[in-house]
Amino acid sequence: MGKLKFDISVSLDGFVAGPNPRLDEPLGEGGEQLHEWIFGLKEWREAHGLEGGETVSPDSEVIAEGLANIGAYVMGRNMFGGGEGPWDTDEPWQGWWGDDPPFHLPVFVLTHHPREPLELKGGTTFTFITDGPEEALEQARKAAGDHDVKIAGGAEVARRYLRAGLLDEFELHVVPVFLGGGTRLFEGVDAGIELENTRGVRSPTGVVHLRYRTVK
Amino acid sequence: MGKLKFDISVSLDGFVAGPNPRLDEPLGEGGEQLHEWIFGLKEWREAHGLEGGETVSPDSEVIAEGLANIGAYVMGRNMFGGGEGPWDTDEPWQGWWGDDPPFHLPVFVLTHHPREPLELKGGTTFTFITDGPEEALEQARKAAGDHDVKIAGGAEVARRYLRAGLLDEFELHVVPVFLGGGTRLFEGVDAGIELENTRGVRSPTGVVHLRYRTVK
Repeated sequence: MGKLKFDISVSLDGFVAGPNPRLDEPLGEGGEQLHEWIFGLKEWREAHGLEGGETVSPDSEVIAEGLANIGAYVMGRNMFGGGEGPWDTDEPWQGWWGDDPPFHLPVFVLTHHPREPLELKGGTTFTFITDGPEEALEQARKAAGDHDVKIAGGAEVARRYLRAGLLDEFELHVVPVFLGGGTRLFEGVDAGIELENTRGVRSPTGVVHLRYRTVK
Repeated sequence: MGKLKFDISVSLDGFVAGPNPRLDEPLGEGGEQLHEWIFGLKEWREAHGLEGGETVSPDSEVIAEGLANIGAYVMGRNMFGGGEGPWDTDEPWQGWWGDDPPFHLPVFVLTHHPREPLELKGGTTFTFITDGPEEALEQARKAAGDHDVKIAGGAEVARRYLRAGLLDEFELHVVPVFLGGGTRLFEGVDAGIELENTRGVRSPTGVVHLRYRTVK
């Protein structure tokens, strides 16, 4: 059985999104800064069907590793979007990523609203799970086989799996900015969760990649 | 003129002390875990007049660097303790460190209560400043000459200098634990403060040392 893991960009003050997210600024004020280091990377651009970009060590290796050996994704309802937020629409919502999303794998979306699976181009199928995170993980594990299951986001879903003792490892990309408010990655996590640091590498971009595993 | 800087151990969820600090547990629940990596280091023990200990790379180098080139300290009133908390006493409070404190330099304590300077053994003199952090820094800079001024703690004092644009650099020792609550190092810092990461080194102990400078 593979691992359950996630990786996420976080500000030095611990936020994965800035304050006051809006439709035209979904990552909140200043939140875009968390992802600037990644947009120019060849490895990330390829995975998203974009040309160009550069290889920057160690960022490129970290991104490539984060994309390797994944067999399925689990995703929260806010990450998928539509239907329950200010994004209501008459068209059936297909997620933020157009008709060829960058996942290319089965994606299990946690939601309160039953819906038929949505098969898009390039191998991405969104399956909507209303029976909670453990059921979503079980289905994702079946789909993934021996490969890993990755939590695509958001932070609250990652915390649920962490709290439930189901998470195996995670990697933080610590970006040298303060957001001053917004969504905290580790809001209210349990002090009883034991961690082990397994890696820490710094990039010339100033981003530091910190990898941890949970001790069970 | 030297730099104004600090270094501090912080949990992965961003706390420098755990919840519910008490007289017999001043760092709050679980807070001691933040400092375990340091107590066994030869360099730290020597600075505190203790024998024994080991040299662990890179922790020892980081500690030695943090102690080098300091000419004076600035300290908050809670860090000094006594007089305003549950620690009231009939004896004049001399700080937590006995009659030979580990500073061996002038220490400027921010307080609301005027008091004569307190000269202790080994070169430590506590001078009490009631005119605010800028005045404390000015006096500390004079005492330090060409050397650096270090903020001895606590977090709220470090944040005041950070917010005021007076801090030059800081180093975080990120310890692989969650505290789940307590005193947040970067509570409410200003998103407008620009940072540059200047170092990131991982120790076999699992502590990662992250150094930043403020861009002015």
